[in-house]
Amino acid sequence: MRGKFITLEGPDGSGKSTILNLIGDYLERKGIDFIISREPGGTVIGEKIRDIVLDNKNTNMGPETEALLYAAARGQHVYEKIMPALESGKTVVCDRFVLSSLAYQGVGRDLGIEKVKMINDFGLRGIYPDLILFFHIDPELTLKRKMLKEAGDRLEQEGAEFHRKVYQGYMELLKKYPKNIKIIDADKSINEVLRQSIIEVENLLF
Amino acid sequence: MRGKFITLEGPDGSGKSTILNLIGDYLERKGIDFIISREPGGTVIGEKIRDIVLDNKNTNMGPETEALLYAAARGQHVYEKIMPALESGKTVVCDRFVLSSLAYQGVGRDLGIEKVKMINDFGLRGIYPDLILFFHIDPELTLKRKMLKEAGDRLEQEGAEFHRKVYQGYMELLKKYPKNIKIIDADKSINEVLRQSIIEVENLLF
Repeated sequence: MRGKFITLEGPDGSGKSTILNLIGDYLERKGIDFIISREPGGTVIGEKIRDIVLDNKNTNMGPETEALLYAAARGQHVYEKIMPALESGKTVVCDRFVLSSLAYQGVGRDLGIEKVKMINDFGLRGIYPDLILFFHIDPELTLKRKMLKEAGDRLEQEGAEFHRKVYQGYMELLKKYPKNIKIIDADKSINEVLRQSIIEVENLLF
Repeated sequence: MRGKFITLEGPDGSGKSTILNLIGDYLERKGIDFIISREPGGTVIGEKIRDIVLDNKNTNMGPETEALLYAAARGQHVYEKIMPALESGKTVVCDRFVLSSLAYQGVGRDLGIEKVKMINDFGLRGIYPDLILFFHIDPELTLKRKMLKEAGDRLEQEGAEFHRKVYQGYMELLKKYPKNIKIIDADKSINEVLRQSIIEVENLLF
């Protein structure tokens, strides 16, 4: 039987990565056969692409180039890792997937949601998440957290206006593509955010 | 006044690169302000992408990933180099452009011409060549030349069947998108191939 595909989405600083690992611990305790992965990477080729996308020295990267590189890394991720895992019956939990590109490149970079969706669909081989956990958090809170951080990668270094646009993009996407999306209130404590997430994972798996 | 955009297209081993440099010599003698470039590269970011695409170690690359990486390198090439050069009035002569992806990835990799065109168009900002010199050569001849070569990059190493498909793809494309294409008989001597090419360049520029 084909495995289930779960993705975690939301703005930078919404606590996705912490919860991703805790969901992994939970699946392990339950004896579920699973893999955890992250975007844009998850494969050797994908990590090389990620290095190009996130390198702060690549200041002259065109927005279309950025979007196509994310789509390429994601396509490889699906081809080499996600698809084979799902086909062998494993549950796949992934930090970020297509929705991130629609928000960051489609809205944040003004390339258009539909166009960015189209170049991503090209590489997805029909894969769509069975569950998208959307980590909703007050955008001003994540911006404050980011201010306290020393330096980030090329995208994290973008200013407050870019990240507000990304947030607005996510809000638009929740209405436009609500399929399989569950909204998690990520302003709460880690324990509470994990509790909400696990409820949705259990609803899907059991 | 906006510069003219000339691209050279055709199968591997059709002598494009030699003629590209000779066209450059010709433009220099004529006092034309021009740049010469090549795909998939032509920019620092593009060369990094090229390294990933052509690396023989990346045997597990999905066909969609390959097509998206070429489209990304091309998008960056347009954004950083071709567009600014054309806007400053320079003539741009480029070894390979979109038609190569339609033949190699669209037909050679069975991804479909229309789909590969779509992901490329995403990054082209409306740029289309004013002249496409298509180097037509007997495909069995280029295959024989290739057999004599020691080792090639990841795409050159593909077998004879792949390169025959690419050739058939080009033949289909000449009918499907004839706009601005001039066919050069590349079975002839270098001098003759150059002569045919210069006639087309002169018709465009003078």
